[in-house]
Amino acid sequence: MRLFNCACHAQGFMAQAVFAPADGAGAPPLPPASGGAVPASVLDDLAAASRILAQQGVFDAFGHISIRHPTNPKRFLMSRSLAPALVTADDIMEFDLDCEACEARGRSGFLERFIHGEIYKLRADVNCVVHSHSPSVVPFSLVGAPMRAMYHNAAFLAQGVPVFDISEKFGATDMLVGNHAKGAELARVLADKPVALMRAHGSVAVGPSLQHGVFRAIYTEVNARLQIQAATLTGAFGGSIAALSAEEGALADAVNLNVVSRPWELWKERALKG
Amino acid sequence: MRLFNCACHAQGFMAQAVFAPADGAGAPPLPPASGGAVPASVLDDLAAASRILAQQGVFDAFGHISIRHPTNPKRFLMSRSLAPALVTADDIMEFDLDCEACEARGRSGFLERFIHGEIYKLRADVNCVVHSHSPSVVPFSLVGAPMRAMYHNAAFLAQGVPVFDISEKFGATDMLVGNHAKGAELARVLADKPVALMRAHGSVAVGPSLQHGVFRAIYTEVNARLQIQAATLTGAFGGSIAALSAEEGALADAVNLNVVSRPWELWKERALKG
Amino acid sequence: MRLFNCACHAQGFMAQAVFAPADGAGAPPLPPASGGAVPASVLDDLAAASRILAQQGVFDAFGHISIRHPTNPKRFLMSRSLAPALVTADDIMEFDLDCEACEARGRSGFLERFIHGEIYKLRADVNCVVHSHSPSVVPFSLVGAPMRAMYHNAAFLAQGVPVFDISEKFGATDMLVGNHAKGAELARVLADKPVALMRAHGSVAVGPSLQHGVFRAIYTEVNARLQIQAATLTGAFGGSIAALSAEEGALADAVNLNVVSRPWELWKERALKG
Amino acid sequence: MRLFNCACHAQGFMAQAVFAPADGAGAPPLPPASGGAVPASVLDDLAAASRILAQQGVFDAFGHISIRHPTNPKRFLMSRSLAPALVTADDIMEFDLDCEACEARGRSGFLERFIHGEIYKLRADVNCVVHSHSPSVVPFSLVGAPMRAMYHNAAFLAQGVPVFDISEKFGATDMLVGNHAKGAELARVLADKPVALMRAHGSVAVGPSLQHGVFRAIYTEVNARLQIQAATLTGAFGGSIAALSAEEGALADAVNLNVVSRPWELWKERALKG
Repeated sequence: MRLFNCACHAQGFMAQAVFAPADGAGAPPLPPASGGAVPASVLDDLAAASRILAQQGVFDAFGHISIRHPTNPKRFLMSRSLAPALVTADDIMEFDLDCEACEARGRSGFLERFIHGEIYKLRADVNCVVHSHSPSVVPFSLVGAPMRAMYHNAAFLAQGVPVFDISEKFGATDMLVGNHAKGAELARVLADKPVALMRAHGSVAVGPSLQHGVFRAIYTEVNARLQIQAATLTGAFGGSIAALSAEEGALADAVNLNVVSRPWELWKERALKG
Repeated sequence: MRLFNCACHAQGFMAQAVFAPADGAGAPPLPPASGGAVPASVLDDLAAASRILAQQGVFDAFGHISIRHPTNPKRFLMSRSLAPALVTADDIMEFDLDCEACEARGRSGFLERFIHGEIYKLRADVNCVVHSHSPSVVPFSLVGAPMRAMYHNAAFLAQGVPVFDISEKFGATDMLVGNHAKGAELARVLADKPVALMRAHGSVAVGPSLQHGVFRAIYTEVNARLQIQAATLTGAFGGSIAALSAEEGALADAVNLNVVSRPWELWKERALKG
Repeated sequence: MRLFNCACHAQGFMAQAVFAPADGAGAPPLPPASGGAVPASVLDDLAAASRILAQQGVFDAFGHISIRHPTNPKRFLMSRSLAPALVTADDIMEFDLDCEACEARGRSGFLERFIHGEIYKLRADVNCVVHSHSPSVVPFSLVGAPMRAMYHNAAFLAQGVPVFDISEKFGATDMLVGNHAKGAELARVLADKPVALMRAHGSVAVGPSLQHGVFRAIYTEVNARLQIQAATLTGAFGGSIAALSAEEGALADAVNLNVVSRPWELWKERALKG
Repeated sequence: MRLFNCACHAQGFMAQAVFAPADGAGAPPLPPASGGAVPASVLDDLAAASRILAQQGVFDAFGHISIRHPTNPKRFLMSRSLAPALVTADDIMEFDLDCEACEARGRSGFLERFIHGEIYKLRADVNCVVHSHSPSVVPFSLVGAPMRAMYHNAAFLAQGVPVFDISEKFGATDMLVGNHAKGAELARVLADKPVALMRAHGSVAVGPSLQHGVFRAIYTEVNARLQIQAATLTGAFGGSIAALSAEEGALADAVNLNVVSRPWELWKERALKG
């Protein structure tokens, strides 16, 4: 059985259980109730997305992607802590928005799952979150020059790309978004944008669906490479970069939102081949 | 049957049918007549070209290539809207130069097929059109520095590489060449050149044959990488870039036109291997 | 039998033999005694590490990795002189810290094994040494700008990355660390750091375990690429690079030390696939 | 039979035939005599070298490698005109130093075989010539900054890397070294060096053996990448590049000359795997 839960574990029932523990105050809190059964194809697609992002060079041995639970917006689905290229549907765990596992079964979640939970809390429009250290994006987190949209495929960047510098609020840290407060601050900096950079760390990309999240994570990396190349040219020859305007970006992104299934099908076929 | 049409559907017969609809003014216009049967090997080569350009990094999940119909210059052949790495001969559609499908059979053409149709209208010498967002070329569409021919394999660029900025004539758009007017303007900017850049979008490469179109698309990308590297060197050490002169370019391109079958055979063998 | 030695060749016994040669002063010195049997899994992992570093682009046809003997700190294990992508457990040799082979059986060690022996002498905390010419790291050995930690995965670099210029002490040489004196000087420059660059040559990365050595060698290369990209951006747009501070680096590296098994498992699986 | 010739076609015999044509002045000149039979393993290694250079990114669909005939210094061996990744031993042709084929059997030689013949004429120490357009080397042919030796593996470059600008002597051309005069001028510019760049075209690398020619062609490309990266760093941060001195280069190259079989075995194994 590939589904998370049988019908009798649906949210209403379990919520009751949570608030009425049988054993009094000394017992450990019960895990949050599952948001309900999830079709196997949804889990398969989330696992495929993890492998796609590895194959496309967005993830290396690190990085993670989640989706909001398809029928319960207070839950999200995300792999246990594992190299993303190795994720299968059986590795997917369910969390509530406070990042507590509904059914851990001995599996450990990623330390930085708070990135996901806190963004889902703040952004009702977001159903997919990708966190990566994709290699051409990190440099933009370190310099003053903003990332801009180099072409229509990366039109979503024309809304502006904020930078989250964890040290501004939290001082010297291990750089990880490892608790609620850090996740919430990242979500605040992300605001209503599709992508935020994280200083000396990586980035987060969000979208209204799994396919959009994957698309944006990949084209943020591609766009970074393009902008570095454009910077080489203007550094040598002078002049400026005629990036997409905000208006062009909005118009072009509306088209992208309709064509994401084309690259998705290609990437998925490639990732499943290995 | 891999051929487009049997003999009784040849152009003359169908044209008559188009201008004499049986059902009066209220009926939808008939599709344009086919330009005639096309050998299976031509379709196979066009599909192989699509996969070659994906394998060589000119196409990613996007991009398209077309050829003019081998016996009817008023028609062209192009894949349905599909990731180019997945194109097979069965995906090839036939269009008239106004980009109407001769026999859609439920298949959708690419939104930007107008790039192809309008260039075929203006350029009788062109029998192949490639549109891509190849990753090292896009930066040249964004900066003032012109793309130049870095070596003899890219000699065709020594004629000059115009830049089509869609916003000059059309204001803020979704950046796509999605109608006749935009395609015609791109064709006008391309003029008699083999390659034009498209600001914040990509490029178009044309040639007298399928093999030349593929050759030029690939070596435009290679040349872009070389020029970015050369720019790094002059940016750091000063000095200028001793690119091909126009005269050298013309002489070298005449040689290239005769050797394109050598790389073609290699690329095709690799692409068919997968 | 995959073990180095049977019990009767254990160190104590052989050491006695070394100091009491049967044949008097004229005989060649006996080889150093083995440090004792080593589990096959340790040899397999060391061979896998060599292939991992080749597959990840840290090694090309050159480069070598060693580990300190698991039960005898006066010995280390390292492949015979061989392209690192081809190393198997059978190629592993044992050396004392003076880089004499315990049992050569006609196999030749690497010319530069002194890098390893001398670092093991000086650094009791080090159990793995990697020497490579990884391609993005070499440039940092040639320029004044220091390598810095671009992100948390490379946090170990925030301690500072010294540069060993062999010509400072040894004048014009063949650049190789081919004897004790050169190895000792490199170890002195490395001091207590995890990585040192070697001018016009490459680098050395060390760690408390095989997995840490591999992790640091790989992320030193990744970090170098990131810093070159960041330099392109600041070169074009101005501004500085907000690298990890020393304090951030120390905090982040403590986390890395605990997660190295995740990338290791991925890399190993990939390397064994070929 | 994989040998070029049976014993009765050995050089002395054939030379007699060449100077005593049976049919008088009106007959076409006889082809030059073969230099004698060549072991199959030599042809196999030359074909493997061609595929190695393609797999290592030195050749794309273009490029060629030759060796001097192992027993007759007035002959050389080189593939017919073919994409180098596809070369097999059966494609190898024999030429005299004037680049006439000893036994064409309908096969066409490369247009630029004069690069090879003229260098063999001038350089008795050279037994292998590689001509390529390897992608990071071309930029150095276009700018004033000289290529220098970034590390010991490329120590052969510390002798200096001359640039052949075909336009200096021949004006505007198709850039190809397609006749004796151009080949001789390139050989003159190369002089006693291991590598010469060819403006807006590529480079030539030579060596005392096949393995050395391959080694130098590959590490010229690697060195070019390193120098471009180093240029990025000095362009952004200032300072200069502490390349190998001439003396360091000479000492280091002497070591390289002894270790080329290690990478050769690796590259060959990989190339034969495909």
